[in-house]
Amino acid sequence: MSTSPSSSSRECGVAVLGFGTVGAGVVETLLHNGDLLAARTGVRPVLRGIADLDTTTDRHIPDLPAGLLTTDSPALLARPDVHIVVELIGGTGIARRLVEQALALGKPVVTANKKLLAEAGPELYALAEANHTQLYFEASVGGGIPILKALREGLAANHITSIYGILNGTCNYILTRMEQEALPFATVLASAQQLGYAEAEPSLDIDGLDTAHKAAVLATLAYGAPAPLAQIPVQGIRDISPLDIQSARSLGYRIKLLAILRKGPRGIEASVQPTLLPLDHTLAAVSGVFNAVQVEGDVVGTTLYYGRGAGRAATASAVCADIADAALDLLAGAPRHPRSPAASAETPLPFAPPDLITARHYLRFNLHDVPGSFARVAACLANHDIGLESIIQNETPDDAPSAAPGYVPVSVTTQPAPAGALDLALAEIGATPDLVQPPITRFRIEALA
Amino acid sequence: MSTSPSSSSRECGVAVLGFGTVGAGVVETLLHNGDLLAARTGVRPVLRGIADLDTTTDRHIPDLPAGLLTTDSPALLARPDVHIVVELIGGTGIARRLVEQALALGKPVVTANKKLLAEAGPELYALAEANHTQLYFEASVGGGIPILKALREGLAANHITSIYGILNGTCNYILTRMEQEALPFATVLASAQQLGYAEAEPSLDIDGLDTAHKAAVLATLAYGAPAPLAQIPVQGIRDISPLDIQSARSLGYRIKLLAILRKGPRGIEASVQPTLLPLDHTLAAVSGVFNAVQVEGDVVGTTLYYGRGAGRAATASAVCADIADAALDLLAGAPRHPRSPAASAETPLPFAPPDLITARHYLRFNLHDVPGSFARVAACLANHDIGLESIIQNETPDDAPSAAPGYVPVSVTTQPAPAGALDLALAEIGATPDLVQPPITRFRIEALA
Repeated sequence: MSTSPSSSSRECGVAVLGFGTVGAGVVETLLHNGDLLAARTGVRPVLRGIADLDTTTDRHIPDLPAGLLTTDSPALLARPDVHIVVELIGGTGIARRLVEQALALGKPVVTANKKLLAEAGPELYALAEANHTQLYFEASVGGGIPILKALREGLAANHITSIYGILNGTCNYILTRMEQEALPFATVLASAQQLGYAEAEPSLDIDGLDTAHKAAVLATLAYGAPAPLAQIPVQGIRDISPLDIQSARSLGYRIKLLAILRKGPRGIEASVQPTLLPLDHTLAAVSGVFNAVQVEGDVVGTTLYYGRGAGRAATASAVCADIADAALDLLAGAPRHPRSPAASAETPLPFAPPDLITARHYLRFNLHDVPGSFARVAACLANHDIGLESIIQNETPDDAPSAAPGYVPVSVTTQPAPAGALDLALAEIGATPDLVQPPITRFRIEALA
Repeated sequence: MSTSPSSSSRECGVAVLGFGTVGAGVVETLLHNGDLLAARTGVRPVLRGIADLDTTTDRHIPDLPAGLLTTDSPALLARPDVHIVVELIGGTGIARRLVEQALALGKPVVTANKKLLAEAGPELYALAEANHTQLYFEASVGGGIPILKALREGLAANHITSIYGILNGTCNYILTRMEQEALPFATVLASAQQLGYAEAEPSLDIDGLDTAHKAAVLATLAYGAPAPLAQIPVQGIRDISPLDIQSARSLGYRIKLLAILRKGPRGIEASVQPTLLPLDHTLAAVSGVFNAVQVEGDVVGTTLYYGRGAGRAATASAVCADIADAALDLLAGAPRHPRSPAASAETPLPFAPPDLITARHYLRFNLHDVPGSFARVAACLANHDIGLESIIQNETPDDAPSAAPGYVPVSVTTQPAPAGALDLALAEIGATPDLVQPPITRFRIEALA
């Protein structure tokens, strides 16, 4: 095979496409810890070139050898001395075309691009398979945490019962500061943007889509299911207020943005939603930019994996582990653990209809302060067989809309109910004259053991 | 190779030696989740036989096929249709001879036997290498947590800066109950024995040796160092009293039995010792029989792995993951990640002399209630340049020895000091007339971020 590294020298040529934050981290790690990788795996990854449109910005790698930078990605990845292609451009445009070009040449591709995987995974897995090569994507979920390897290899003997993941560092950083400093969302977001913890265009993170991309990757590995994003209902963190955080706390919970995958009677129940977790649960203790994933297997029981979910170095650690795996697979002449989703379960499971996902919920209504308003709201819930577990009537907050000075926020927690029934009840409540805008706040509750 | 599984059928014959708790769990998992393993890896593990001296006890596996049980381990493992040998006998007698026999036949061995690895690891790794085969031992540390795979493969690009592990479920169970129920060690141990959470002969667990065995395995993988147990100072949990737990709590700490491996200026600093951890640290939140390991890498930063550290099913999950890896390695004709310690670092690091390990400490002295006694103790510490950070003088506890009705327990925390200096200071204090027996209690403090 033309792409095999020479077995005498046991070197393996690597091309890095994209010299941004993570690309620079990968280059730095290959330069500084290349000896370690060679000692541990028996193959030395050798950097053949780095492609980026911007070849002038200083990436602060003082010992970067001269002559590695190019703007011509297609030519670099096609070089015969390049055996492994690392895609760190991001997005689904140029990145996708380069990944396809590399796979078509039979070269393994390492990527951190969850958006690409979530949107074009099945096509890329098929393309890799057709060309007898592989796609490696440990860095796409959980940053430096080796969660995909744990799921695919470490827990190979387990049917995966459930996965609960804090998968977006930006969201977790914002929620942590909102709680610790009792600040509203917009204030913390602005500060996070200034500090570099949130993008100038933060929507992908805070509206939950990035978490959904990662949930789709996890679903593929755990359940063998091709996971179209449309199957995963997504709710971000914009609607979380300090009042919600405080109400949750008084009930013994902390709010986290959670990706949830669970094997249910109708298939995989998948969702991304702000979720109330018991304060003493390990996931509730994950603060700041850290990520964590709890995986439950039918044999092993509960396991949990924790670490930095993003950033130059953490992501580089995962990319370089994949480079090592790809190099070993090239040496062996065959991939050890097939990366195709079809290989990850006996029979791929279908997704359950989101309407039928049953869970407990936290709801907050801002009601007009008139007699009977809560009774009418409660009746709407009862109409759809949704029982209440607790009710907190809060004081009118300082930031009450001036148009509605007399509003009272009421927070309730419900008994388990299907999402569809809750939709209907909330629509009914929305049609009563009792509700003050903004619309009803609705989060999930998971009483994890 | 005679031990290769047939590549047409892609089946792989497995012999299980030892049909105790874990052996039964492995057999059950292979029977029930064999299809899943076959789908995920492309190789089906097929149980060829189970060897145990006791072939009559009911292991509660209703669908166990007839004819698998034998008392003749050597004959079973030598069968040509046995490709992988699983050693679950434990100990270093018969188990070692059978492991050696299998390796000498060029057959890969999967084991959960940390005692065997800690005591004879280097010889067994060498024997495996000489016979072009491998030893797999994921189940030897952390039960079902895929911690060794994470360390060896997932963090392959990292120099390991430190490892902090809660590695013994029995100890953690006892400490959790001592704290939650404010009970003395002996009472909880007796209850744990009745409930099956502690052995009738509990010394291996509660005196820290089991944790030291696991620390030795981790040190080998992380630092490439052959790890003779004599290099690892070990202190168990017998001396922890409810008073210590309470004093630690009032200082903001919880006491855990911790294996600590750290890269220091003089080499690997290794120890097993009761350790005070900040109450809000993730490791402090690990309760009951669970294990957790925090691994710090120079690229990835802090990562943490959590799960059941023992038991039939959790351990079986790890053993079966190793069976899958061994089967894939057989198919590939070569092991993917060499298991020999020499392969896990550029240059194996030496162990630092235990005397030079510098840490903060918690000390408790039971002093005669006479003026000046604490001043004399403090002077002994100052003589060896050991500064104090905090002092708690407790009330005389109810269980004070009747011979010393007037004793006062005093707990202090020290500034960082080398263990050797502390030894000398404590010896000096022991020679003063101020100390009441029992001897000085001495734990470590780690202010982990």
